[in-house]
Amino acid sequence: MEMKESLLNNIEYPSDLKKLKVEQLPQVCEELRAFIIDELSHNPGHFASSLGTVEITVALHYVFDMPSDNIVWDVGHQAYGHKILTGRRKVFSTNRKFGGISGFPNPKESDYDSFIAGHASNSISASLGMAVASKLEHKDNHTVAIIGDGAMTGGLAFEGLNNASICDNNLLIILNDNHMAIDPAVGGVSDYLLKLTSSPRYNRIREGLYNRAVNAGIIGDDKKGKFTRLTNSVKSLLSSQQNMFEGLNIRYFGPSDGHNVVELVSLLEDLKRIKGPKLLHLITKKGKGFKPAEEAATEWHAPGKFDVETGEKIKVIQTDQPPLFQDVFGHTLLELARENDKIVGVTPAMPTGCSMTFMMHEMPNRTFDVGIAEGHAVTFSAGLAKAGMMPFCNIYSSFMQRGYDNVIHDVAIQNLNMVICLDRAGLVGADGATHHGAFDIAAFRVVPNLTIASPINESQLRKLMYTAQLPDKGPFMIRYPRGKGEQKDWHCPLEEMPVGKGEMLTDGDGVAVLTVGPIGNTVAKAICELQEEGIHAAHYNMIFVKPLDEDLLREVGKKFRRIITVEDGVKNGGMGSAVTEFFNDNDTPIIVKRLGLPDKFVEHGTPEELYKLCGLDKDSIKQEIKNQYNKI
Amino acid sequence: MEMKESLLNNIEYPSDLKKLKVEQLPQVCEELRAFIIDELSHNPGHFASSLGTVEITVALHYVFDMPSDNIVWDVGHQAYGHKILTGRRKVFSTNRKFGGISGFPNPKESDYDSFIAGHASNSISASLGMAVASKLEHKDNHTVAIIGDGAMTGGLAFEGLNNASICDNNLLIILNDNHMAIDPAVGGVSDYLLKLTSSPRYNRIREGLYNRAVNAGIIGDDKKGKFTRLTNSVKSLLSSQQNMFEGLNIRYFGPSDGHNVVELVSLLEDLKRIKGPKLLHLITKKGKGFKPAEEAATEWHAPGKFDVETGEKIKVIQTDQPPLFQDVFGHTLLELARENDKIVGVTPAMPTGCSMTFMMHEMPNRTFDVGIAEGHAVTFSAGLAKAGMMPFCNIYSSFMQRGYDNVIHDVAIQNLNMVICLDRAGLVGADGATHHGAFDIAAFRVVPNLTIASPINESQLRKLMYTAQLPDKGPFMIRYPRGKGEQKDWHCPLEEMPVGKGEMLTDGDGVAVLTVGPIGNTVAKAICELQEEGIHAAHYNMIFVKPLDEDLLREVGKKFRRIITVEDGVKNGGMGSAVTEFFNDNDTPIIVKRLGLPDKFVEHGTPEELYKLCGLDKDSIKQEIKNQYNKI
Repeated sequence: MEMKESLLNNIEYPSDLKKLKVEQLPQVCEELRAFIIDELSHNPGHFASSLGTVEITVALHYVFDMPSDNIVWDVGHQAYGHKILTGRRKVFSTNRKFGGISGFPNPKESDYDSFIAGHASNSISASLGMAVASKLEHKDNHTVAIIGDGAMTGGLAFEGLNNASICDNNLLIILNDNHMAIDPAVGGVSDYLLKLTSSPRYNRIREGLYNRAVNAGIIGDDKKGKFTRLTNSVKSLLSSQQNMFEGLNIRYFGPSDGHNVVELVSLLEDLKRIKGPKLLHLITKKGKGFKPAEEAATEWHAPGKFDVETGEKIKVIQTDQPPLFQDVFGHTLLELARENDKIVGVTPAMPTGCSMTFMMHEMPNRTFDVGIAEGHAVTFSAGLAKAGMMPFCNIYSSFMQRGYDNVIHDVAIQNLNMVICLDRAGLVGADGATHHGAFDIAAFRVVPNLTIASPINESQLRKLMYTAQLPDKGPFMIRYPRGKGEQKDWHCPLEEMPVGKGEMLTDGDGVAVLTVGPIGNTVAKAICELQEEGIHAAHYNMIFVKPLDEDLLREVGKKFRRIITVEDGVKNGGMGSAVTEFFNDNDTPIIVKRLGLPDKFVEHGTPEELYKLCGLDKDSIKQEIKNQYNKI
Repeated sequence: MEMKESLLNNIEYPSDLKKLKVEQLPQVCEELRAFIIDELSHNPGHFASSLGTVEITVALHYVFDMPSDNIVWDVGHQAYGHKILTGRRKVFSTNRKFGGISGFPNPKESDYDSFIAGHASNSISASLGMAVASKLEHKDNHTVAIIGDGAMTGGLAFEGLNNASICDNNLLIILNDNHMAIDPAVGGVSDYLLKLTSSPRYNRIREGLYNRAVNAGIIGDDKKGKFTRLTNSVKSLLSSQQNMFEGLNIRYFGPSDGHNVVELVSLLEDLKRIKGPKLLHLITKKGKGFKPAEEAATEWHAPGKFDVETGEKIKVIQTDQPPLFQDVFGHTLLELARENDKIVGVTPAMPTGCSMTFMMHEMPNRTFDVGIAEGHAVTFSAGLAKAGMMPFCNIYSSFMQRGYDNVIHDVAIQNLNMVICLDRAGLVGADGATHHGAFDIAAFRVVPNLTIASPINESQLRKLMYTAQLPDKGPFMIRYPRGKGEQKDWHCPLEEMPVGKGEMLTDGDGVAVLTVGPIGNTVAKAICELQEEGIHAAHYNMIFVKPLDEDLLREVGKKFRRIITVEDGVKNGGMGSAVTEFFNDNDTPIIVKRLGLPDKFVEHGTPEELYKLCGLDKDSIKQEIKNQYNKI
């Protein structure tokens, strides 16, 4: 077999891609796909999404001119191909690594990244802003948003669509429809898109319109291919009500094959000339070109390392390890739900990530994946709670920023009995700034009626979950991090914990360290090591951020002159601030040294690297304890 | 003319209404409307919305059985009629008054209020939760959500619809379509609804279906009325794509006249028997039955006192008063926009409320009312900013809770140059707990890259607005309250203010009071009065919550042992906490006494009553200054 010369190796920037003939693009796609598969096999990242967008990416960069044109990716893990074609092929091996390129588009990294893309559903709003700006400034550049069908369920996407239809703009929205979010996409929109794709009636109308146009001499047979793609817009002139998007005054084109790069180029060149907001519906396959991923896209969303030939995932053999907090949540939820038939589970498109799948499999009618829709997840849970159910609503901490008002307005004001679990609280690692669960403690502890707790380990998570679902506990928030805990033997009996009570883990003198959450384990190690140096710091695990254990604080206030607080969240406004407030309110002149995340966005890297960066690793904490000792 | 006996006077609860014959309901509606008009004429509140829902309200309570059935109002100011018919007619004169009934449905007030309803667009999500709970518990009660077309543009409503279509539920959604939010409704959805109502093609299809059904013997002529209403569901069986709601698998009925109470009763009785999620589209007139309000619904949204006979608004003559902060914002924005052609205005459905209307009238193409869509308003502004424009995005503080993630993810991470104005910051008065702008300082000051300022008066607002739009200021947030300021002569020259610099207003000794925002004026009066008692407290106006003026704080830390902070926001996590953090970070053992809103939801009343309640009136502040003096 003759080896073709690599095209990809000669593409640094889209300008290089543009030198190729359109017939060469399938080869570029093939090479790009192979590059992604090879890279991801040994440098883990988001896999299946980016395989599904190879042809779209190549066609977009062939037709449009970045960075004067804007291409806005919705949820950046579709965008590895984009990164590789825009100056980052040679550094792609640093993807998601500390100091390396980010796993998501990020304008700070490259002018080719038009907008940040960590949280789903923002692309239409952001790109509409850009498209409107072009109009206002009389520029003739183009703006394209690429949004998945999963992200299309987010309310923000709908708000953007609703607004796009009335502004003066030439925005092109590409709907990348693979019928998946990370888990299969759910909801009416998803069903609707499937119907749109497969309805014989719909296709009949399209065909009929074509024939009529030919008969009327509007169109010749040579244009048939193009017309098949564009009839929908003709149809929209005849009736604007057959299609949700056209119902919103957005011209609809498609559905078309998102993996035919040559046809995509022709299609995009046509659409480039059409004024006004428009939507191109492309059908793609998540994981396209790598069989195992095509067959199990959820599993291959971010698969870790794997063997390119066999498709076998390379598991790091770790026996006798503590479980993931996620799995402890999942198993405990099911255990509780078996006993308490009021318990229901709600999650916005994250059943696998948060391990609600265990309950989902056994009790499908009591678990609700509501799609990418964090605000709705909270308010829907509030409705369930108002009607007497006991929802466990599980949302990643950083995504819960989308539900801030819902927690305040729909849950806290009504003081509803429900449980809100914030998964991925604290530093998450490789996903970086958009995904760290940094703000939840500071943002939520100021909301009346909430109880906020964070377990130091797996068994405390179980006990907090048990406690939270007991009668009349009000809205009860439990935050815990991504990944493993510390306890191999986590399956403790379920028992009630007193709300608002912390615990002393180590007695000491001079300096007390107050912690909340699993970062307490790092502190415990630091304190243990310092004992060998003759420094005996005390350690208190607060467990509850709200209500604070005021008895414990009064005791600490009497015994210690210097206090260190440690938390895995922004230090401004967090648990440490709450402790500081308490001492001021009680006229206790104590100095509180707060450790936590800094007042800047923390980038990506391993959790270990990032904790060190933020002064939250064992050695930094030891040093801070020594510093405070020296000041006594 | 014979006086008919009053029916309304004998209705305390819906059970009384149910005793009437359906033919008597028009009279009930007439009396209810007259009651609302009369009450509102001397006890101001939300007027036009509730007039538009009189017939819907009467029909709902006639057909459904509250409180075992749930009726969830979306944005509560439609719900005065509901309150009057559910045990609160006799206390309706206390509406929105301190200690009286709330202007919005509130379950704490009555079992007939199924869910809280201060922020728009939450009704579908909440009622879906209730409807799903009924299914899970095998109850056969009914749940109805009533949502306006304005609220339908909110992303949360869409997320709810998307989810409603896949859950097992019998939810009835009533779309109260008056083509208005507070300002006229905008966007594709709004246009879409209008088209749906008026499309001859649509009505032709409906008629055709009816004729076919009669010809085929499916239906007799006696059923014609009913069939006209129900054909849409038949049509949906033939094609599921002609209608956005049916596209989402939600059966669509209507449009029907929302002011024909007898027909509404019959319609609701039919719909009660239909399983699955369904939507009834009713056309109503905001302000119905009161001519001036019908003709100018925005103006009559919450008109204040008026003369029932003439429709003339009773203006309290106040000459030589300071202007509203809103008007200062509006005039200054226009003034700035005339000079800086990059400036654009963005607001989610509040152009009148925030006075962006001034700019809107002069520069319609540079102002964007994006509909009830706070998240989109922020991200759309971020897109504009990314493309080089200078957006002023104006959102009420409590509604900005909906845009928390958008500010973090789409604005702050990218450090975009744009201005975010938080109107209605602090206590708003009669709108109560859902509308107080209580949390913004605490929630946003922990977000990196933001600048957060609050002017003490009108001219400072102008200067902050001027400063914020200068090059490279990053995301710049300005919070100010509802209502009047203090300066009659506010039209000062525009000049730059140094970012992060406060000012000393009064020198003193012993105790320093640090304030931010217009509450500083109350503090200034308190300090002035105390001087006569020989107490000389110092007063510093921080102006900036972020960055804090650390030079100022160091100076204060050297000179004073006790500090009081005063702010019009939650005291936990707010500016006072930031000051406390600073002194702890700098090993300065100073006691900071924080004054602000308490850790509970503050109800409605006049601002004066509420400030007193929260210890933020002049006398309480004087007392606290004295307390601190006594502790020196």
